[in-house]
Amino acid sequence: MEKSVDTMEKVVSLCKRRGFVFQGSEIYGGLKGTWDFGPLGVALNNNIKREWWKMFVESREDMYGVDAAILMNAKVWEASGHTGAGFCDPLVEDTETGERFRADHLLKDAGVDAEGMTLEEIDAAIADHRLVSPKGNPLSPARQFNLMFESRIGATSGAEGKVYLRPETAQGMFVNFKNVLDSMSPKIPFGLAQVGKAFRNEIAPREFVFRVREFEQMEIEYFVKEADWETEFDKLRTDIQTWHRHLGLADENIREYEVPKNDLAHYSKRTIDFEYNYPGKGFDELAGFAYRTDHDLKNHMQHSGVSMEYIEPDGTRYIPHVLEPSFGVGRAFMAVLCEAYTEDEMGGEARTYLKLPVHLAPYRVAVSPLLKNKPQLVEKARDVFAMLKKEFGNVAWDDNGNVGKRYRRQDEIGTPHCIVIDFETLGEEKPELADTVTVRDRDTGEQERVAIGELIGYLK
Amino acid sequence: MEKSVDTMEKVVSLCKRRGFVFQGSEIYGGLKGTWDFGPLGVALNNNIKREWWKMFVESREDMYGVDAAILMNAKVWEASGHTGAGFCDPLVEDTETGERFRADHLLKDAGVDAEGMTLEEIDAAIADHRLVSPKGNPLSPARQFNLMFESRIGATSGAEGKVYLRPETAQGMFVNFKNVLDSMSPKIPFGLAQVGKAFRNEIAPREFVFRVREFEQMEIEYFVKEADWETEFDKLRTDIQTWHRHLGLADENIREYEVPKNDLAHYSKRTIDFEYNYPGKGFDELAGFAYRTDHDLKNHMQHSGVSMEYIEPDGTRYIPHVLEPSFGVGRAFMAVLCEAYTEDEMGGEARTYLKLPVHLAPYRVAVSPLLKNKPQLVEKARDVFAMLKKEFGNVAWDDNGNVGKRYRRQDEIGTPHCIVIDFETLGEEKPELADTVTVRDRDTGEQERVAIGELIGYLK
Repeated sequence: MEKSVDTMEKVVSLCKRRGFVFQGSEIYGGLKGTWDFGPLGVALNNNIKREWWKMFVESREDMYGVDAAILMNAKVWEASGHTGAGFCDPLVEDTETGERFRADHLLKDAGVDAEGMTLEEIDAAIADHRLVSPKGNPLSPARQFNLMFESRIGATSGAEGKVYLRPETAQGMFVNFKNVLDSMSPKIPFGLAQVGKAFRNEIAPREFVFRVREFEQMEIEYFVKEADWETEFDKLRTDIQTWHRHLGLADENIREYEVPKNDLAHYSKRTIDFEYNYPGKGFDELAGFAYRTDHDLKNHMQHSGVSMEYIEPDGTRYIPHVLEPSFGVGRAFMAVLCEAYTEDEMGGEARTYLKLPVHLAPYRVAVSPLLKNKPQLVEKARDVFAMLKKEFGNVAWDDNGNVGKRYRRQDEIGTPHCIVIDFETLGEEKPELADTVTVRDRDTGEQERVAIGELIGYLK
Repeated sequence: MEKSVDTMEKVVSLCKRRGFVFQGSEIYGGLKGTWDFGPLGVALNNNIKREWWKMFVESREDMYGVDAAILMNAKVWEASGHTGAGFCDPLVEDTETGERFRADHLLKDAGVDAEGMTLEEIDAAIADHRLVSPKGNPLSPARQFNLMFESRIGATSGAEGKVYLRPETAQGMFVNFKNVLDSMSPKIPFGLAQVGKAFRNEIAPREFVFRVREFEQMEIEYFVKEADWETEFDKLRTDIQTWHRHLGLADENIREYEVPKNDLAHYSKRTIDFEYNYPGKGFDELAGFAYRTDHDLKNHMQHSGVSMEYIEPDGTRYIPHVLEPSFGVGRAFMAVLCEAYTEDEMGGEARTYLKLPVHLAPYRVAVSPLLKNKPQLVEKARDVFAMLKKEFGNVAWDDNGNVGKRYRRQDEIGTPHCIVIDFETLGEEKPELADTVTVRDRDTGEQERVAIGELIGYLK
């Protein structure tokens, strides 16, 4: 199936209609850059996060979970450099309306790459290209706009009460490096892993859950000996590839963009952006993987005065180097939905379905009585439903409309199997079919008769 | 065992030493009222949240998960009343040092209940009792201090950019009531459930993770017909009791405090506080359960202009009434640890252990080779470890020090079973014991020989 801009619009519309994602604070006109997840979106997100945790933390021996507070001492962000110009976007104003825009985006639209430009260079480029605001008005000079949300903590007045909403989960791990060393005695190489919210005050949030002001990250800080960084980099790179396959993303829709040496942050020696081929948008960020040297731990050691040295059994001390695989839950969510979205024809009718992997589907299976007004069918179906719900948890009960409609409805939300309890289940027509049910496959539409006693094994 | 103030201190110290909880931003001197969870704390918290979700959402048919953004349109908090005086604490200042205190706390210490007092009445009571600051200086007049953290969103200036960090997850569900009605067609009674962070700028955070500025909630808004509220209240009350037993909390340590009619919020007709008997602190909040009438939906309908009516199949329309069970993850965490903390004597030696339920323990089981320098023992132990890790995920490998020390170490973090691979496992001494291991029980210290092939069944 050809996927296009159109596909993206259809995915967004399905998300709203079927309870995956709603605009944040929708009944009050929304709040730009925020999204609320509905029942099916929560289920999909929880599945993504659980599978990630299982793969990167629970199934390994070298990973330690951390859950740091969103509000951190402001000194953390001074040490990490986030309070400085490096974490700012260049902003210009429409001098008539006061509307604000990212100068680098306006320049990009005019064919100019503003990456690394000073404010003066940006102003010069805007003048050179005679850029005006989208409304045709002159633009103000560019200024730096810091992306961290600021707040005040405590009842104190004055500067000491300033706090920020964390713009990344990463620093929560660096700041707890010493605590984990002291309490868990990990052996190098080892990683800290965290799943949690982060916030960036984007000037121009856009593209559904892709560029937002509140998002969720799944991050790892992996600590290695400097000499081992390349070997460990290769191993984690393979793990990231395995993860993306586990999400059901096709290899050909993933591109590994090796960030050129001269575009790397000054402390990074190698960075790979994992990009997904979003329909209508093309390859864009999905996950990142950076070798950050000992930059972060060194910074925190200098600013806090606390030693960040690892001590080998033989007494050797050193500051470990860091590999950072970083994943956005919302981007994984979006890639998974785009990949799964499929249109085909079945029984002469057009249909839409989500070809989600079983371990990600909001409902593992749906159970229906053939007719909802036949008590014996309903009773039997309830028994099967109860049995499966006890085993799997995420099982849907669906008795609305005719069976064909139920199939289409479950297809659209990616339920891998539908089970129907019919008169043959009751053994009324063919006794040999008593206690068997129809199991219908989402992708092929094919149906099989399966004995109730074998259902759990069949579905597994 | 007698549990006292002392017990609480011991729990806090164990939490830090063994990687459950660290002070937030500790290396920078901390940030008052914030806490970071370490590897074992994340594991315990994740277990609590997963079990809650299983019990209150996945095992039921009447619950729908929601995950609303932390940042919401400011109008949400105007509608809910949180921007008003009702969500403020009365604050007084030491007129010499500028230190700030909660006036109601100072009055409570002097034996005066300030609940419901106006600022003028508070000032009069302070004067009557000749109260001064803890440093002996005069106090300023009382003023209202709003508990919501404030920030600014977007690059705009002026009032329209004001946002708050949500002080409760509840409003995220009311605001999505209509979205869930439209996308999921639930039948009344039904509930929305959410797990997520909330923030309150407490003037005086204190008592470990009990009174904090950043916390996690597990909340349900359960929508019922007005006529049914009492029946549904009783059912949910029983569910809450079942939940607390599932956490392993003894019935005698739970008290249900029926809030007296004249202390109820004006919109509530009944509220029960579920309190836990925290050692050294006595009965204090663990969970809350309120019947909130149609107050919230009505307010949002008035402020947003969006209908919050539920339509029965027969066409009857009405605004549902709401029952709200509300749980704090941190308080559950603390109650579970306090309940589990046990000191006894074993083999003539004092020991400390956490008597955690199996479904909450950070590690389900620990695996050790008797000696770490015997390759055959280590190899066999690794096989057993790999098998159990594949099955359960949260399995510890422990080969440090002698076996007695390992038992004590696992006892202290609540690991229900320890498995040791010894020379008998290898079949070297008694061939009939080949491929059996020692399984030691945390609570009794008793050891049994179990065949490796039967281990998974035995542990389950």
